[in-house]
Amino acid sequence: MSKPTPISGFPEWTPAQRMIEQYVLDRIRDTFELYGFAPLETRAVEPLDQLLRKGETSKEVYLIRRLQADADADGPAGDDALGLHFDLTVPFARYVLENAGKLQFPFRRYQIQKVWRGERPQEGRYREFLQADIDIVDRDTLAPHHEAEMPLVIGDALRSLPIPPVRIQVNNRKICEGFYQGIGLTDPESALRAVDKLDKIGPAKVAELLAQTAGASEAQAKAVLSLAEISAPDASFADAVRALGVSDPMLDEGVEELVRVVETAAAHSPGLCVADLRIARGLDYYTGTVYETQMVGYERFGSICSGGRYDNLASAGATRFPGVGISIGVTRLLGLLFGAGALSVSRDVPTCVLVAVTSEEQRAASNRVAEALRSRGVPTEVSPSAAKFGKQIRYAERRGIPYVWFPGVDGAADEVKDIRSGEQAAAAAGEWTPPRADLRPLVS
Amino acid sequence: MSKPTPISGFPEWTPAQRMIEQYVLDRIRDTFELYGFAPLETRAVEPLDQLLRKGETSKEVYLIRRLQADADADGPAGDDALGLHFDLTVPFARYVLENAGKLQFPFRRYQIQKVWRGERPQEGRYREFLQADIDIVDRDTLAPHHEAEMPLVIGDALRSLPIPPVRIQVNNRKICEGFYQGIGLTDPESALRAVDKLDKIGPAKVAELLAQTAGASEAQAKAVLSLAEISAPDASFADAVRALGVSDPMLDEGVEELVRVVETAAAHSPGLCVADLRIARGLDYYTGTVYETQMVGYERFGSICSGGRYDNLASAGATRFPGVGISIGVTRLLGLLFGAGALSVSRDVPTCVLVAVTSEEQRAASNRVAEALRSRGVPTEVSPSAAKFGKQIRYAERRGIPYVWFPGVDGAADEVKDIRSGEQAAAAAGEWTPPRADLRPLVS
Repeated sequence: MSKPTPISGFPEWTPAQRMIEQYVLDRIRDTFELYGFAPLETRAVEPLDQLLRKGETSKEVYLIRRLQADADADGPAGDDALGLHFDLTVPFARYVLENAGKLQFPFRRYQIQKVWRGERPQEGRYREFLQADIDIVDRDTLAPHHEAEMPLVIGDALRSLPIPPVRIQVNNRKICEGFYQGIGLTDPESALRAVDKLDKIGPAKVAELLAQTAGASEAQAKAVLSLAEISAPDASFADAVRALGVSDPMLDEGVEELVRVVETAAAHSPGLCVADLRIARGLDYYTGTVYETQMVGYERFGSICSGGRYDNLASAGATRFPGVGISIGVTRLLGLLFGAGALSVSRDVPTCVLVAVTSEEQRAASNRVAEALRSRGVPTEVSPSAAKFGKQIRYAERRGIPYVWFPGVDGAADEVKDIRSGEQAAAAAGEWTPPRADLRPLVS
Repeated sequence: MSKPTPISGFPEWTPAQRMIEQYVLDRIRDTFELYGFAPLETRAVEPLDQLLRKGETSKEVYLIRRLQADADADGPAGDDALGLHFDLTVPFARYVLENAGKLQFPFRRYQIQKVWRGERPQEGRYREFLQADIDIVDRDTLAPHHEAEMPLVIGDALRSLPIPPVRIQVNNRKICEGFYQGIGLTDPESALRAVDKLDKIGPAKVAELLAQTAGASEAQAKAVLSLAEISAPDASFADAVRALGVSDPMLDEGVEELVRVVETAAAHSPGLCVADLRIARGLDYYTGTVYETQMVGYERFGSICSGGRYDNLASAGATRFPGVGISIGVTRLLGLLFGAGALSVSRDVPTCVLVAVTSEEQRAASNRVAEALRSRGVPTEVSPSAAKFGKQIRYAERRGIPYVWFPGVDGAADEVKDIRSGEQAAAAAGEWTPPRADLRPLVS
């Protein structure tokens, strides 16, 4: 077999990077559970019609098909209608509808899974990546204070990681839509889409786009851009909006909700949240607060954690399940930091102690030492060979394993060597414990 | 949208079941790490030619294809050649070849991921399921003591779970192949395949099959069945093999290796391992020890954890990477136990404390209590509504949340109520700690 090569868009971490990823996922999960979110996993596949409900993403869907389907009596139809999920929100909305009778509302869940998008591969774009989502859905109505809770959870989760500080930018769709209505624009969706491109193409081009796609006059385009320029770390954004002199009930409602989000976040951790009225989020299903998150020093790579409130994603007949959710792009986040060499782990394996083997006949004695250490929670390997001790020590060195254990021969005491300092001392496997900092690999 | 329905073969657990699954995965991972296995994840997809190297499973492969591929200039070819992995061994062998230059050998890794098999759905068969694998590969040669280590790891991992006791059945392909050669059978693979069906079709039918597919005489078929009948919890199986009077160097080597596996396991935990010479494992790539695992009381459902030694799965030119591995079928295991109602969790959410809300105006005070509790590791939710306290208590009751916290009004002390006993006492959010057993949901 010839040497295999990577597949573009499908990243694979080294074991050391995977240790870092697991550390990150453990911290995120701990925070989600501290806030009472229950875990959930959904299947990787959804019926194609579900996946295509979000129009824009249809080109990204991966279909799956059994290799032998054509040969079967049942034909390809059944399986051809399945695709891999491209996010965790659409599957979650489906899960809620399917299991509504068994769930308690409001339902708080977190979900950490791979998703797939069949995009054309390009720099920094993944076709397979890991997301960590939280959502809260309720039946019929969802109280707006849930929108204010999201930044607290995300702020705590991201602050628990060895990563640069983050800033969560928040806006509210009602502000934009209300404002656009208030100035007489009839196609708020097209206006939103144009504003969403502000970072990429700049205000002049957005003004052109507003004229072309949303039918905006010069004055309307100017007003839209004035709104988008408003940004403040506190409720003062509301004064700036009012100063624009536009009156609309939906606009007022949106401002009130966004004030609450910003003030709740400021009470929890000042500086975490910024009201930024240019944040639009391309997806059309958001109906209230929207979130984006930038990592300080990595702003040019865009948002690492985004979401918003959606009122119409899950509904069956007259029953609606409005929700709010936010998603950490774990692969994206780690890809950026790995690329910058900004994350490291203190060793390449979980192992804390390597038990040397004096001779193959004595391997059982080394196994007993390992068993005693493991029974007290010390990750331990037995040396794969009974080579000279120098070679066994190099096995540990190459992997960053801090301790090598030498079983005593002919009644002599066992000894343990810290191979970083070279210190060696008598020790008993039933009692010896490494310093706490050495027990597990340290991520920094 | 109409109510969605489950897709056959793609199981989805409830949040409470997912909490149990996470508990199980955490225990398994802890054990794997205690033995020094490093974590690894591989991408979900492999090139089709890699997946088809294991002939028997080709009919189970799911191909993936971009929905928009046909419309693209690059056409469908590139993506059509990708399929979802159906196990974690084939991707691991590919990963080792691809990264051999960067890995330290022997390389010990664990891998816990979903796999997909496009089988026809039937009772108890999954199309998507979770596996937890460990493997050790070395370059050129792999010392046989690694084969003896596998049952120790699996024994510890499964013993750490709230499940019935297990018995690991071991055999060695060299015993079967050497024995078949020794009695003059020229097609040992066909003989193995016939013996693999012993549990399903019984000895008479296997004898017929041996005659038909492996060209066995009546005496040869009888000898093959005599070997397959040998089973012992210790090295005494070797005497029973010798009593059959067949002489072959490969047979002797296999017996020696299997004695070592059984004796190492007996020293670690008596009764865990049984030499069972009928265990064949259908997959043709095994070349040494093979493992199957039965759960006491669930024997009729077959093996929940299987594997073996493979010498030829990963090789590039003249370089070989022989390995040994074993895989816990987590979804299968949990599916059986969930089906029998044999696993439960003490509550439906991670939440330990629900902080009541006196009025919406006072929500910030409840947020502060929650923040203080969370900062000391107590999973806490704030009540979604400022309804009457009786209704807020019922919110906690319905989810099994053990404590409800009442923030003091007008300078009064906060109080916390254990809603199981009804006891209520003054408490300070910066100091109060629940009994350890209440902190996290208990799985039993």
